[in-house]
Amino acid sequence: MKHGGDLTQAMAEFGGAADEWLDLSTGINPWPWPMRKLPDSAWQRLPSRADEQALLAAARSAYRVPDGAGIVAANGTQALIQLLPRLATDGAVAIVGPTYSEHSAAWSDAGHPIAAIGNLAELPAHVTHAVIVNPNNPDGRIVEPDRLVEIAVVLQRRGGWLVIDEAFADVESGISAVASCGKLPVVILRSFGKFYGLAGIRLGFAITTPDLAHRIHALLGPWAVSGPALYVGTKALNDAPWAMQTRVRLAAQAIKLDGVLLKAGFDVVGGTSLYRFARHPAALALHRRLAQKRIWCRSFDWSRDMLRFGLPHDAEALDRLAAALAP
Amino acid sequence: MKHGGDLTQAMAEFGGAADEWLDLSTGINPWPWPMRKLPDSAWQRLPSRADEQALLAAARSAYRVPDGAGIVAANGTQALIQLLPRLATDGAVAIVGPTYSEHSAAWSDAGHPIAAIGNLAELPAHVTHAVIVNPNNPDGRIVEPDRLVEIAVVLQRRGGWLVIDEAFADVESGISAVASCGKLPVVILRSFGKFYGLAGIRLGFAITTPDLAHRIHALLGPWAVSGPALYVGTKALNDAPWAMQTRVRLAAQAIKLDGVLLKAGFDVVGGTSLYRFARHPAALALHRRLAQKRIWCRSFDWSRDMLRFGLPHDAEALDRLAAALAP
Repeated sequence: MKHGGDLTQAMAEFGGAADEWLDLSTGINPWPWPMRKLPDSAWQRLPSRADEQALLAAARSAYRVPDGAGIVAANGTQALIQLLPRLATDGAVAIVGPTYSEHSAAWSDAGHPIAAIGNLAELPAHVTHAVIVNPNNPDGRIVEPDRLVEIAVVLQRRGGWLVIDEAFADVESGISAVASCGKLPVVILRSFGKFYGLAGIRLGFAITTPDLAHRIHALLGPWAVSGPALYVGTKALNDAPWAMQTRVRLAAQAIKLDGVLLKAGFDVVGGTSLYRFARHPAALALHRRLAQKRIWCRSFDWSRDMLRFGLPHDAEALDRLAAALAP
Repeated sequence: MKHGGDLTQAMAEFGGAADEWLDLSTGINPWPWPMRKLPDSAWQRLPSRADEQALLAAARSAYRVPDGAGIVAANGTQALIQLLPRLATDGAVAIVGPTYSEHSAAWSDAGHPIAAIGNLAELPAHVTHAVIVNPNNPDGRIVEPDRLVEIAVVLQRRGGWLVIDEAFADVESGISAVASCGKLPVVILRSFGKFYGLAGIRLGFAITTPDLAHRIHALLGPWAVSGPALYVGTKALNDAPWAMQTRVRLAAQAIKLDGVLLKAGFDVVGGTSLYRFARHPAALALHRRLAQKRIWCRSFDWSRDMLRFGLPHDAEALDRLAAALAP
């Protein structure tokens, strides 16, 4: 499957209604930020500039954006992934992979040659831009901010950009390279929906130089972000205590998930506390067996022995996974 | 002001909190489709392909899209207005105006020379594309579907497109040129938020050839429309009785609004049943007087004697407008 989080394919192939499935195919927090009733105006009115400014102020605080950097909100990080390659100067892009497939698709569609590399040390001399997902999806590999700054300096000399997709960076403070934004040609992408457990709301951010943030905003046009996303995003990003508790809770659940996987013969080789990346010689057969029991995890077309598991949301779901994996 | 529906500027200049204002600066239905509580999954899950297909089926039915035409959903018509000029072949575009300003801005930003024309009979020989808002905003002028087909045939010979922005076409059946979609190079834009009174939700459609619909979808990327918009949009577009009643109710309220405006010395020269377009020699002074009384209507930088009024939502609001306009 191309993406996690869509049971359409699972149900077509294996049957069952959506609510019978345990969906572990995503990296979305299973305990969403607690929604309150939205004011009617969030639905009915066009989003105002004041609403947008309040959201960006909350995001600046939550993501520790330095004063000299620009920030722009979009209807999901995906919208920004689609758009960035069309704003970039011509030239090849190195993409550190295997990783989330949409980066490569978007740069390729926009006419940039792609150089697939395994890590930043392999950065080819001919590329102008580079894209890294950090922590990486699916393996969780983390590159330190200092190393990313070195690469950004190299790309700056080539007139290019370093795009850092921090879709899963909320889970640990200290991962983010945000401090380098504004001074270097770095574009950081932050996803709201994954850590806050509200992927349906469609909200993401680009943090970069003020000039590029302005160009992205102009290309998105007015009202790119919905009223509900502005309202909920502002409240949730300002809720620092929730974020702190959630980091701890996710980490604890990830340890429990690892326990289930280890017991079933998996070797847990990486991931973040929003998903675990695990090896098993019979991975594809297990993927199928789980699907027959209405549990959907992620397999990859580039590997026969790796699976990715999102977090089961409670003890019952953990037990259901354990039972389905038992020989 | 550039757009209606944003009190940020009104409050900055004239003071007051948002809820003290009577906002008549938009063409948004003041009686929104009645929201129910959304299922948690609409917020929490990534929108699925099945959700998207259900929305498009509802839109096909509500907008009477012919079988041979393609349709694609976006996070608001504005997102489509931003994107279309970048997909169009090179060449100048004729824009029938004065009209909604974002069409011209988007085509110009994408490098197309603009020919501003007063009506389609003036279509210059050198233009490749044309854009018409139908009914027009703000004056409500309607061009018959047969005439639009003639223009589309002309533009087809030039390798161009006819873009028809039907943002306000819901108010009257028979306005839409949708029957021509699929066969001719016509792109029809439909806005969900205005007629359904839910402008914050960000939902719009392009109805066109299957090939162009596919290209737009590819450029928007996956999950462009939020879970709440998919859920509410599908339910509302399938609610034909509500749409029928709403057309009648809007028309009746527009007549009452006309009564207030005529009594205050305005000449109502056009509009739709979502907004009225009216002339008064002291229009700008009245705009200011209304703002001082916390009533916000639309003025235009290209006219000193025209104002546009959205519908007051009840008798009290009508009376408040009448009192503020009384000498």
